[in-house]
Amino acid sequence: MTSNIYDDENFFKGYSQLDRSVKGLDGAPEWETMRSMLPDLNGADLLDLGCGFGWFCRFARQSGAASVHGIDVSEKMLSRAKADTKDAGIAYFKTDLESVELRPNRYDAAYSSLVFHYIADLRGLLAKIYASLKPEGRLVCSVEHPIYTASAAPQWIRHPAGFRTWPVDGYQREEARTTNWLAEGFTKQHRTFGTYINLLVGTGFTIERVVDWAPSAGQLAEHPEWEEELDRPMFLLMSARRLSD
Amino acid sequence: MTSNIYDDENFFKGYSQLDRSVKGLDGAPEWETMRSMLPDLNGADLLDLGCGFGWFCRFARQSGAASVHGIDVSEKMLSRAKADTKDAGIAYFKTDLESVELRPNRYDAAYSSLVFHYIADLRGLLAKIYASLKPEGRLVCSVEHPIYTASAAPQWIRHPAGFRTWPVDGYQREEARTTNWLAEGFTKQHRTFGTYINLLVGTGFTIERVVDWAPSAGQLAEHPEWEEELDRPMFLLMSARRLSD
Repeated sequence: MTSNIYDDENFFKGYSQLDRSVKGLDGAPEWETMRSMLPDLNGADLLDLGCGFGWFCRFARQSGAASVHGIDVSEKMLSRAKADTKDAGIAYFKTDLESVELRPNRYDAAYSSLVFHYIADLRGLLAKIYASLKPEGRLVCSVEHPIYTASAAPQWIRHPAGFRTWPVDGYQREEARTTNWLAEGFTKQHRTFGTYINLLVGTGFTIERVVDWAPSAGQLAEHPEWEEELDRPMFLLMSARRLSD
Repeated sequence: MTSNIYDDENFFKGYSQLDRSVKGLDGAPEWETMRSMLPDLNGADLLDLGCGFGWFCRFARQSGAASVHGIDVSEKMLSRAKADTKDAGIAYFKTDLESVELRPNRYDAAYSSLVFHYIADLRGLLAKIYASLKPEGRLVCSVEHPIYTASAAPQWIRHPAGFRTWPVDGYQREEARTTNWLAEGFTKQHRTFGTYINLLVGTGFTIERVVDWAPSAGQLAEHPEWEEELDRPMFLLMSARRLSD
């Protein structure tokens, strides 16, 4: 089972104060790009894996989606999601994504933001997602970038030549990494680029677009402190398509 | 035009002494993996972009290829390739890959080893390769890895926490990088992972497999010094397919 740190009191408190929790999708720097990777949502049946507070579920309905199923393992997050949602077109389910069951041939698109790097059996989950999509259905997802997750001590360091640099080591060691983000002993899975792509292709998906996320010029003007994001990518965004039958 | 440093006297001398120049394909650590990405060569018409000394061209013919066209910009390399090849099924052409013309619908597979990161207009070259492939034709290629090419000073450094690490900075700056490998002022193009994938997909290719190359257990037993390759990938290997018509 995936560790559900989101229901830890301190973690939840910290997470709730992040921009992406307070401001929703617009508080997530990579949202603009994720949005550009989405298919037409009008009339679509959608699945949101790791829906958290339900921001994307509500966005999808406002964008014309016919129905949205949001799945999350966190009791605390789902209870806030439900409190914030007055829409019979959205249904929330509390389930661990490692053991979720999905109805085959049900969705036009699946969305998952910064969740897959918590999943130990990603191959198994992708197979279920693939089967749950209708022919030509899309998957749009983001993960913490392999460059971001690789090192045993992932933090900015100083290059002997004098400038800020990001350390990459243990890149080929595809194992869990334990960090102290908002709480002690936070566990995530490090995978290489190739592994993410090959897992998708191996499931049957056709790769459509891959983005090492970087802030736009407009975002940099508003948030000059994001300039460090040009030095190394924090997020990897991918979109893929189920074959037509 | 791509800078043709391979005809520089000192560079050529240094390059000729590399294991991959002396021992051929088996002297290239990533060859075993590249080979596993190739389609069936039996009876196939092949294109080798940046064929150098012609090792792959000869391997392909020994593996049953019907014909092989090897293209390279270096006079010195092609003259050794020709001297080492006694096979009417192999033809060598001296052409700059930036301005090469390829016959449409001609090849079953195109191969390119560690060349695309020298090409400024990779989009243009990929479009020509795509058109030159028969339907379902394959492209198998390798480049220096984006993690390897990103930094302004790409070399092993010491993490303040005490271990060896590889610096990544300027990752999103997709420009030429000048290093001093075998000769002063050696120029290559840094591209992000996403850019390589999107260039292939944008051309029409379907991604088949992507490998951040790492040595196998057997290779590590033979070359313990390659252990550092587990810390960061040096090569990115990709295979892709042209659509059926």
